[in-house]
Amino acid sequence: MKINVGLIGTGFMGKAHVFGFATARRVFDLPVDFHMEMVADASDALASAAGKSLGFARHTADWRDIIADPDIGLVNITAPNALHQEIALAAIAAGKHVYCEKPLAPTMQDAREMTLAAEQAGVKTQVGFNYLTNPMFGLARQMIEAGELGEIYAYRGVHAEDYMASPNSPISFRHDKAGGGALADIGSHALATAEFLLGPIAQVNGQSKTLIPQRPDNNGRMQPVEIDDVTQVLVEFANGVSGTIEANWCATGRTMQHDFEIYGSRGALYFSQERLNELHFFDAGDRRDRRGFKRIESGPEHTPYGNFCVAPGHQIGFNDLKAIEIAKFADALAGLCAEPFNFRAGYRVQHIVETIQKSAAEKTWLDV
Amino acid sequence: MKINVGLIGTGFMGKAHVFGFATARRVFDLPVDFHMEMVADASDALASAAGKSLGFARHTADWRDIIADPDIGLVNITAPNALHQEIALAAIAAGKHVYCEKPLAPTMQDAREMTLAAEQAGVKTQVGFNYLTNPMFGLARQMIEAGELGEIYAYRGVHAEDYMASPNSPISFRHDKAGGGALADIGSHALATAEFLLGPIAQVNGQSKTLIPQRPDNNGRMQPVEIDDVTQVLVEFANGVSGTIEANWCATGRTMQHDFEIYGSRGALYFSQERLNELHFFDAGDRRDRRGFKRIESGPEHTPYGNFCVAPGHQIGFNDLKAIEIAKFADALAGLCAEPFNFRAGYRVQHIVETIQKSAAEKTWLDV
Amino acid sequence: MKINVGLIGTGFMGKAHVFGFATARRVFDLPVDFHMEMVADASDALASAAGKSLGFARHTADWRDIIADPDIGLVNITAPNALHQEIALAAIAAGKHVYCEKPLAPTMQDAREMTLAAEQAGVKTQVGFNYLTNPMFGLARQMIEAGELGEIYAYRGVHAEDYMASPNSPISFRHDKAGGGALADIGSHALATAEFLLGPIAQVNGQSKTLIPQRPDNNGRMQPVEIDDVTQVLVEFANGVSGTIEANWCATGRTMQHDFEIYGSRGALYFSQERLNELHFFDAGDRRDRRGFKRIESGPEHTPYGNFCVAPGHQIGFNDLKAIEIAKFADALAGLCAEPFNFRAGYRVQHIVETIQKSAAEKTWLDV
Amino acid sequence: MKINVGLIGTGFMGKAHVFGFATARRVFDLPVDFHMEMVADASDALASAAGKSLGFARHTADWRDIIADPDIGLVNITAPNALHQEIALAAIAAGKHVYCEKPLAPTMQDAREMTLAAEQAGVKTQVGFNYLTNPMFGLARQMIEAGELGEIYAYRGVHAEDYMASPNSPISFRHDKAGGGALADIGSHALATAEFLLGPIAQVNGQSKTLIPQRPDNNGRMQPVEIDDVTQVLVEFANGVSGTIEANWCATGRTMQHDFEIYGSRGALYFSQERLNELHFFDAGDRRDRRGFKRIESGPEHTPYGNFCVAPGHQIGFNDLKAIEIAKFADALAGLCAEPFNFRAGYRVQHIVETIQKSAAEKTWLDV
Repeated sequence: MKINVGLIGTGFMGKAHVFGFATARRVFDLPVDFHMEMVADASDALASAAGKSLGFARHTADWRDIIADPDIGLVNITAPNALHQEIALAAIAAGKHVYCEKPLAPTMQDAREMTLAAEQAGVKTQVGFNYLTNPMFGLARQMIEAGELGEIYAYRGVHAEDYMASPNSPISFRHDKAGGGALADIGSHALATAEFLLGPIAQVNGQSKTLIPQRPDNNGRMQPVEIDDVTQVLVEFANGVSGTIEANWCATGRTMQHDFEIYGSRGALYFSQERLNELHFFDAGDRRDRRGFKRIESGPEHTPYGNFCVAPGHQIGFNDLKAIEIAKFADALAGLCAEPFNFRAGYRVQHIVETIQKSAAEKTWLDV
Repeated sequence: MKINVGLIGTGFMGKAHVFGFATARRVFDLPVDFHMEMVADASDALASAAGKSLGFARHTADWRDIIADPDIGLVNITAPNALHQEIALAAIAAGKHVYCEKPLAPTMQDAREMTLAAEQAGVKTQVGFNYLTNPMFGLARQMIEAGELGEIYAYRGVHAEDYMASPNSPISFRHDKAGGGALADIGSHALATAEFLLGPIAQVNGQSKTLIPQRPDNNGRMQPVEIDDVTQVLVEFANGVSGTIEANWCATGRTMQHDFEIYGSRGALYFSQERLNELHFFDAGDRRDRRGFKRIESGPEHTPYGNFCVAPGHQIGFNDLKAIEIAKFADALAGLCAEPFNFRAGYRVQHIVETIQKSAAEKTWLDV
Repeated sequence: MKINVGLIGTGFMGKAHVFGFATARRVFDLPVDFHMEMVADASDALASAAGKSLGFARHTADWRDIIADPDIGLVNITAPNALHQEIALAAIAAGKHVYCEKPLAPTMQDAREMTLAAEQAGVKTQVGFNYLTNPMFGLARQMIEAGELGEIYAYRGVHAEDYMASPNSPISFRHDKAGGGALADIGSHALATAEFLLGPIAQVNGQSKTLIPQRPDNNGRMQPVEIDDVTQVLVEFANGVSGTIEANWCATGRTMQHDFEIYGSRGALYFSQERLNELHFFDAGDRRDRRGFKRIESGPEHTPYGNFCVAPGHQIGFNDLKAIEIAKFADALAGLCAEPFNFRAGYRVQHIVETIQKSAAEKTWLDV
Repeated sequence: MKINVGLIGTGFMGKAHVFGFATARRVFDLPVDFHMEMVADASDALASAAGKSLGFARHTADWRDIIADPDIGLVNITAPNALHQEIALAAIAAGKHVYCEKPLAPTMQDAREMTLAAEQAGVKTQVGFNYLTNPMFGLARQMIEAGELGEIYAYRGVHAEDYMASPNSPISFRHDKAGGGALADIGSHALATAEFLLGPIAQVNGQSKTLIPQRPDNNGRMQPVEIDDVTQVLVEFANGVSGTIEANWCATGRTMQHDFEIYGSRGALYFSQERLNELHFFDAGDRRDRRGFKRIESGPEHTPYGNFCVAPGHQIGFNDLKAIEIAKFADALAGLCAEPFNFRAGYRVQHIVETIQKSAAEKTWLDV
């Protein structure tokens, strides 16, 4: 089964996607033969250069050419967030599958419209939530589902980095009121992980702070910042489990603290993305004098680590996670499984984000 | 300056206190010569045995003998929580200094009365909050005060253990509605640490769960449990810093997760009581390619570690923290400094605990 | 500058090399345009399949076709070790550059011959020592060279894994007396790392053990094993520094303990390949009460990490190291730098290996 | 059973011993009632002060008074190393038990004489090897003896600190050719640990370096240094296991790296004194996708941790190890068990130390 891919947007994430397709093709025995067919960028010169360096057969300065082309089966959107909705709706209307970088759209309302359109059209969709495809995440969920932790007691989730910790970090689209802020930008990952592991979140109660109230724009003029730099949330999952979730992009010293800790009646798990190839497991059934958290290293038994390295402990990297994401989408496109993280899932995360923002503004609990 | 000590209560904590006095005397050059004068326990036989094994000059089956004795200068209360108030008020009325194990009293109201009485009488008081005397805590506070972290951005505090994780753990005084539950029992430590480091908490918003709704009593009959097994709290400090605090005594696999993580504009700290001799420090001012969290090991430069070991890295233990607590109280008794954690401080912690409990019941933010 | 590549051998390492070329091409702005021109494997069917799946323009069942083809500029050898010498000598004689998987050859004598031939012919060569291209290794060497550790005091190096720990692991070419054993297989990596960091080793004194004296062959018959399962070595570097190096492939529980620890008069470093994106640095010049090992995470400042991820802490994986190896070789082929690890370097490692083996057999110190 | 203790030497170790006796008495239900009877120091003033502060009934400026006193049952020697032999032989001749700080004596010959005298006299002896009494060491040995590691494959042991890393650290008795150097001072601990865990060492092959060839004396004049700053040793145990042992007191950044790692056919262990309450255990029998090193925290199941803390994870400190040492000696004095580490054991360690020194000087393997 061959699918021609049309890529719209050739910035950092565009390159990462193309690279992910290439890696996926080499590392996995994909049920889909992705062909890098056409690439669109803002000008002909840019598109031409990108087409050459990224290995596309054709290029265009107008993304609508990709939509209009009957040979394109999959539209891959890595354009700026503000364009996601328009492009995606056009692609869906043309009956194409859509693979869109996160966030799906600046607002929950837009995301909802995109989701409904895709579902009505019956096309396959995927949103790029990088962390969920980690083999250690699969292991964690499998252990929870198999009851190895027993009844779940509590959850703690964090996504903290420090890329906005400096007051000199300039203002950008990430600080836009629509779709910006630490919660939307990285808290969305923490929420996706929480639901991936424990199922739907039912209620939230957030607290947000703008730590750096002014940031310089590109001309060095100070501009007011209205979004959150840190948001902490009390959550209750639909299954009754309580927990906390935190998003912080001023977490000085932290580069990739996408962490979780889960306690259950029979065991516990903790994980840090700072060491993405390790999952720590405590088995309460071990004899008391031999108990302790066990550092499980990613290995061939933890699918699909074995596609990358034949021996445990060699470690996959961040970019490899993107290749797994694409391989899973290929399975979904071939009808072998449901989409791992489709538009509805992306829409759901944005729905929770906006509910938390509202809850923080109103200082109250809200149902999701 | 000699002070005769009267100990009331000879259980586990009573022994720990006596041992702490002995260690403090040997390890420190105390300004106070504590003398183990009289011990009280429930029966004459118990008191006699305790007096002998613990090295007291006299013993009694009636704690009021200690209060009545003009030679006793310090009353040390390690009796059951329910008796704290009565004993403490009697001791204060008799003009004696009081050293009371935590929690100060089952209710905030009781704690308040004890505090006011002590302040009116002008006696010195101390509540036993073990963790605060860790040299690494002193270092952390000193670094914050000196501005080494810059402006504080956010706080995360936890006290999690698993001693109640089993549904078979019997019901006890720790499950009493007055003064019981994970928040009061160990969350109180997390609150004390948070205020020790960042100053007063101004607002709280809690969420509590009873994970194990029934526990067996001593006769094996199941009894309903009404207190919290886990409580997560959003907090805002008076200085505007936001954070989370969590108390969980069903944290399977965790034995002593009394942890904190603090981010600031110039640096960050994290600490885990699981490795109580280490403090991790990130200096944002380091050159970018040499940055990272630095594992500072407790050493003679971190007062009063050097009283215990002449070289760094040898590690003090949990019991040593009690000796430091007593040494600091000795300084306060000798007028060399303020009491490190007096009744007002203990009362304050209970005040926050009850405010959180109320906030969780009402599902709302509350001022402390 | 375009170079056509001829690959000989399409097993696991063959695939890894092709994948490395593809990744290098995408991640780096290579000065060489590598073209996957021809692939050779044992049969026409195998070669044809490999050619298709690996993206080669042509294929052959006779590796001599690659040697004979004037359009091939680089011969990439991932065939069984026993064939390395014959192929390499033929390629060199044909004036081609050679990229050969480690070990260079089963014996030091063979490796020497290959090295001299390459040097006489003036072709560029490279041996695949994966670990050396880690950005953290580059950082470590840079720090040593810049004097950040001061005068070097001592060295400890290990390469330990457990893939031969089970007595049921079948006998294989890795157990051949020529070129086999833990020291040759993985100790070679530890030696390469030691010299990469501290320069030439001058004297060695080894101790070897065969832990599992018999292993089953493919028919389940037990065969005697004559090589080492563990070898520990005392070493003295030419600069007078003393140290230990250990190779152990029966290191139960260890998957990738390629570690080093280096002490100097001004600082110290330690590293474990189990967490390949971290380097720990102690600066003796820090004020005493703020000293400690600092966990430096790989980031864009540590070239060429930034080619893979734009932000620190995201982590590169084992396969990414191969791409860096190829990119460095491309620079050497373009004349921009010396080969990072050429045949002479590979020969040198084998020379040390054999000297250690001799030293262990004779139970004495030997000059390298 | 009451035993009067006579302490000779009131420096740092003297205080540590007295403190250890006091702690042991409180923490354990000792079969011996130690009474601090008499203390000796160099002058009457010193002895008087020490007697008062340390709680001895009597004091003397002549240690021979302690030997001569028929009421003294145990002579505790913490005087300078050079005096150990004379005092111990006198005490033994007087029929007293002897507890001597390590090293037993400056030379193996002296240690041998002391050992034979004690054995002939039938008195009980103990040498202060602090680390062996760690509950985690007991657990490790118990696991090895129970076969939980299977057949032992290899051993790695280190004792590295940095207290001599600075060239400005003045010359002292630790640099005396008789009994000085890193190997004798701290390598002796690594050797004791190795034999504690795996039994006798049969052969050794050492390599020693003097890193700092001159150090200032108390007058600031540079004096030549003739002992080792770092010694690495290849060892073979009597049971055929091979390993390495390293002593380094110029190990910049390391404060207490008294570490071991042991591999066996069924499991593995590693330990670092930097975190003395943790033992890491790998069980090769775990299912492959749940394997990993498990961090076992010291708890009440690991005797005698429970005497210090009722709950796991609270952590004992370095000084607590001394109390355990004394409690074990009390058991031996009461005839309940053999001495845990008597003069013969201390003599043996010195015997190995001198054999290693000879081996390093002769650059050859030597039988122990």
